[in-house]
Amino acid sequence: MSASVQLITPQGYQALSPATVTAYLSGIKAIAAKLGGDVSGWRAREIGDGNLNLVFIVEGSSGAVVVKQALPYVRMVGDSWPLPLARAHYEYYALVEQTRHAPNLVPALYHHDHDMALTVMEYLAPHIILRKGLVAGKTYPNMARDLGLFAARTLFFTSDLVISPVEKREMTAKFLTNTAMCKISEDLIFDEPYYAAPLNRHTSPQLDDTALEFRKDTTLKLAVQELKNKFMNAPEALLHGDLHTGSVMVTESDTRVIDPEFAFCGPMGFDTGAVMANLFMAYFAQEGHGHGADYKNWIVQQAEIFWDVFANEFTKLWNERSEAGELYNPRLFADAPELKDKALQARLDAIWQDTLGYAGCKIIRRILGLAHVEDFESIENADIRARAEKKALAFARRLILERTALKDFKSIKGLLPA
Amino acid sequence: MSASVQLITPQGYQALSPATVTAYLSGIKAIAAKLGGDVSGWRAREIGDGNLNLVFIVEGSSGAVVVKQALPYVRMVGDSWPLPLARAHYEYYALVEQTRHAPNLVPALYHHDHDMALTVMEYLAPHIILRKGLVAGKTYPNMARDLGLFAARTLFFTSDLVISPVEKREMTAKFLTNTAMCKISEDLIFDEPYYAAPLNRHTSPQLDDTALEFRKDTTLKLAVQELKNKFMNAPEALLHGDLHTGSVMVTESDTRVIDPEFAFCGPMGFDTGAVMANLFMAYFAQEGHGHGADYKNWIVQQAEIFWDVFANEFTKLWNERSEAGELYNPRLFADAPELKDKALQARLDAIWQDTLGYAGCKIIRRILGLAHVEDFESIENADIRARAEKKALAFARRLILERTALKDFKSIKGLLPA
Repeated sequence: MSASVQLITPQGYQALSPATVTAYLSGIKAIAAKLGGDVSGWRAREIGDGNLNLVFIVEGSSGAVVVKQALPYVRMVGDSWPLPLARAHYEYYALVEQTRHAPNLVPALYHHDHDMALTVMEYLAPHIILRKGLVAGKTYPNMARDLGLFAARTLFFTSDLVISPVEKREMTAKFLTNTAMCKISEDLIFDEPYYAAPLNRHTSPQLDDTALEFRKDTTLKLAVQELKNKFMNAPEALLHGDLHTGSVMVTESDTRVIDPEFAFCGPMGFDTGAVMANLFMAYFAQEGHGHGADYKNWIVQQAEIFWDVFANEFTKLWNERSEAGELYNPRLFADAPELKDKALQARLDAIWQDTLGYAGCKIIRRILGLAHVEDFESIENADIRARAEKKALAFARRLILERTALKDFKSIKGLLPA
Repeated sequence: MSASVQLITPQGYQALSPATVTAYLSGIKAIAAKLGGDVSGWRAREIGDGNLNLVFIVEGSSGAVVVKQALPYVRMVGDSWPLPLARAHYEYYALVEQTRHAPNLVPALYHHDHDMALTVMEYLAPHIILRKGLVAGKTYPNMARDLGLFAARTLFFTSDLVISPVEKREMTAKFLTNTAMCKISEDLIFDEPYYAAPLNRHTSPQLDDTALEFRKDTTLKLAVQELKNKFMNAPEALLHGDLHTGSVMVTESDTRVIDPEFAFCGPMGFDTGAVMANLFMAYFAQEGHGHGADYKNWIVQQAEIFWDVFANEFTKLWNERSEAGELYNPRLFADAPELKDKALQARLDAIWQDTLGYAGCKIIRRILGLAHVEDFESIENADIRARAEKKALAFARRLILERTALKDFKSIKGLLPA
């Protein structure tokens, strides 16, 4: 894309700055009341360290809020890579939906401005990004449980198990136009790590041979393309779409999922796979962080708790289901009562297999593709980093290829190097 | 639904009659020219023997046309069962799309009137409905080949193998709102035959035990619900959606597919499965028609030709593909050249398995559900009919349950009773 690409922004859109965001907020009564005092006393700073957006923290005398505004291009690259502002709307719609099903696990929503592609929400303090906590060797007693509950509830309640065909189809259609964000996933997760894409990078020269091996691995590429097909063509539920440890903010006792701008209707296992992938990357990266064997074991345990809580909550919701959606109509159980449990098991097995498949894809893209993660990047010694990355890649490959044979978490643990 | 349900029709909609259709057409210049002469000389008759719509044949001095108009309710039941007129628009959009990819295998399209939910198209003569031909013991040398080409071309060219993510998502969204028609399939194909639904019927008492057995068959119901899940959640391509032998008109040399009002984006195997199911029902029904063993063999051969032509055409299109869609980006083949053939085989295997699964579902629903087919219904002797239906049901059940093990057409033939 050339630098001359014209950025299309709607009438009424203007990118804010720390100097202008306070004046903007002063016009919104509820927000002004929350911040307290006079606008002249409000302090604003821009903290967006992500790749795509502006993020302001605005503090007043009695409170603080976060303002997230989309820019019409990819921030980390610049205005040569335009990206539709519409992602701010999908993020907002998704947050509204998640709030219905997991209200305590997302930030409170205060205001959305469609033209400005901007959302005002709860300022989370003293939360930090989960990924940073894991790199620093911190433990979070509720995190795995909370993420299991978040995934189970947001996925179950937006699926055909609960909502009517009319609602489901409206929701699917609404998010189908989040094309630009889905295309990023389609390219960066499923395609680019598997050919010599110009933006790929890896720890070099240590992983040069491995990267080439992956590009030549027909069996793996075939499996990854099948997973891509399902990513594109299986609108089972409304996904967060980018549920990695950088999209989770935590304290010792609190967990909040943020940034659902990649939201779309897709296969449930894509979200659960993202959680698993990022916990496993934290595990493999410990090779370079040295927080000890106990910490490594704690991380693996969190992945197990995450899946167990997810499956248990999904089971509970399945058994409590009173208003049935279009799938597994309870009338089918009358003459075949065992169907109810067997159908649940079949669903969970299918989600489990997808979870492993997508977890594998997400590990590989973070090591051989464009966008890397701090877990590995913060390992300064390239030889140590490469060693950890190689082990993670071999593990990821097996997750993908053996996903139907790996029946439970124990069999996953068997794949981990000692 | 009660008879007091209010039928919502748009401003400008009026159901036509043989008396009013000619005046309507006289206002459309191109149609008037085609019919020729003065409107007073045009003759119109209503021939809709289907379940849902008005169908007129209008003949003038130099030509004839067919006028198909949706009614705001299910014709076979009456205005107590409303059905949105919008199905006429989906039918029109689908016909436009099919015309692009298989122009000689659908009727020519002359005119569409959105408000009137009406389409004017080619009058096909001396074509008859394929199902009637098969009941009468007629052979059609090109039919199986033509249907294989129709399925391959319409499915391939509307899939992610060819079209861009933007186009694909727009198409998917457009047809997602064909909810009422999809709901008919969801209910009548996948649910109702498997519980004591009030509108179910079967040859009684001969099939009473069998019907109950099917309602108690947990393993089968589980498999059918998985197929339903995929029907609802796998928008691989734009389907005809109702591709049975009653939706095909034939002469000795010509084949035309009609009535795509169930069109939606779904799994390719649903269309190919419909063709297979209906050919196999024609085969089983021969027990009551007595056109001889040669004719039975001819029918089975047509099912085989259909699949072979489908797979060969799909392969040809795959190999010729220049403009690639989002799936199987040719860049992936550079370092792994065998991927191209292996990926094709994986796609064909997946479509084959779905074909068998959906074929099984479609046979069962025609024997145990609401809507039956003339192939069996025209067998007057209930004992003979029941015997044929039982064999078809047993065959259908095995197609569904053994669809991953049945690798080729030969293994299907092995399931047919001598």
